[in-house]
Amino acid sequence: MSEPIDFWFDFSSPYSYIASELIDDLAAKHKRRVKWRPIMLGAAFKATGSSLLINVPLKGEYSKRDFDRSARFHGLPYKFPPWFPLATQLAARGYYWLHGQDCAKAREFAHAVFRAYWVAGRDISELPVLLEIVDTLGIDSEAFAAAIATPEIKDRLRQETDAAIARGMFGAPYFMVDGEAFWGADRLPQIDKWLATGGF
Amino acid sequence: MSEPIDFWFDFSSPYSYIASELIDDLAAKHKRRVKWRPIMLGAAFKATGSSLLINVPLKGEYSKRDFDRSARFHGLPYKFPPWFPLATQLAARGYYWLHGQDCAKAREFAHAVFRAYWVAGRDISELPVLLEIVDTLGIDSEAFAAAIATPEIKDRLRQETDAAIARGMFGAPYFMVDGEAFWGADRLPQIDKWLATGGF
Repeated sequence: MSEPIDFWFDFSSPYSYIASELIDDLAAKHKRRVKWRPIMLGAAFKATGSSLLINVPLKGEYSKRDFDRSARFHGLPYKFPPWFPLATQLAARGYYWLHGQDCAKAREFAHAVFRAYWVAGRDISELPVLLEIVDTLGIDSEAFAAAIATPEIKDRLRQETDAAIARGMFGAPYFMVDGEAFWGADRLPQIDKWLATGGF
Repeated sequence: MSEPIDFWFDFSSPYSYIASELIDDLAAKHKRRVKWRPIMLGAAFKATGSSLLINVPLKGEYSKRDFDRSARFHGLPYKFPPWFPLATQLAARGYYWLHGQDCAKAREFAHAVFRAYWVAGRDISELPVLLEIVDTLGIDSEAFAAAIATPEIKDRLRQETDAAIARGMFGAPYFMVDGEAFWGADRLPQIDKWLATGGF
């Protein structure tokens, strides 16, 4: 019962941002760790034939309001970014490279990327923006830029995405807690109860 | 600030069933009433191009698990019915006719229909099943059967559905609280906070 919680996310998903600010504390309350795993949500959408939420008639208008309100509900800073959606593979590759060097730094980087996009409205699809973030965290930005261009790290991201889809992931955030899948930041209360009771 | 909460639902929606068991108590806590409004979710799906959740690859499998777990999370009896989805217009028409006679009876009828389907697995698309429910509640089943076949009551249901779509409804349950729209049984905690704070 001490397995880490899997947390799959895409940096371009607003509900993933919300979950990213809450999941570690929730897990710690139950003496659990969290394995953060950025994936390419677009690939999952292809697998399920889903379309981007904000492009669906009626639902799209509602969703933008709900992103904002859900952040306020949790007391989190939030601002819908001027570019949405955007490509997140550079950031996700960077995460996996960093994770191989220093887990804690990778977590810091992930938080910084989420906040740069969902609070400060930075264009995190752009390499210079990522390098600036990396610099601020005291990470070697030249090594970072070189690493995320390698075939190994590109493959790693593809493999992580495929593996997540193979485990049922179709949207983000997506969690696996002791074999039980939970989708959405709004399932955190169920995860809390699941961890407290060992399943219900 | 004492306007009733609008609660749009389809009897064939599992999250609507969950919400139906919770929304009145939540509203009462804040001294509010709830206006129950069955609608034809299929019409809303047509308006937004949505497909039935359980038919979406990956998402479908997850959803059936989530229906069940969400009911357990709230301590509600629940069993996925042998027929799903099914036509709910007879039940919805019956609701509006009853509502014109006796609001409280209409509410009792709605609860009974939800539970017949989501707990007892009855086929609520069938008139004899509805007439049996109606009998149990002491409602004149001949008058009921006659009323739901009239053009007036058919129009009423169409109008209610169109009006809901015009107010942004694209899924169920859908709520309107002082002009703010909330979608999903999982938004009840946000509604609770909204009512407690007058908006956040």
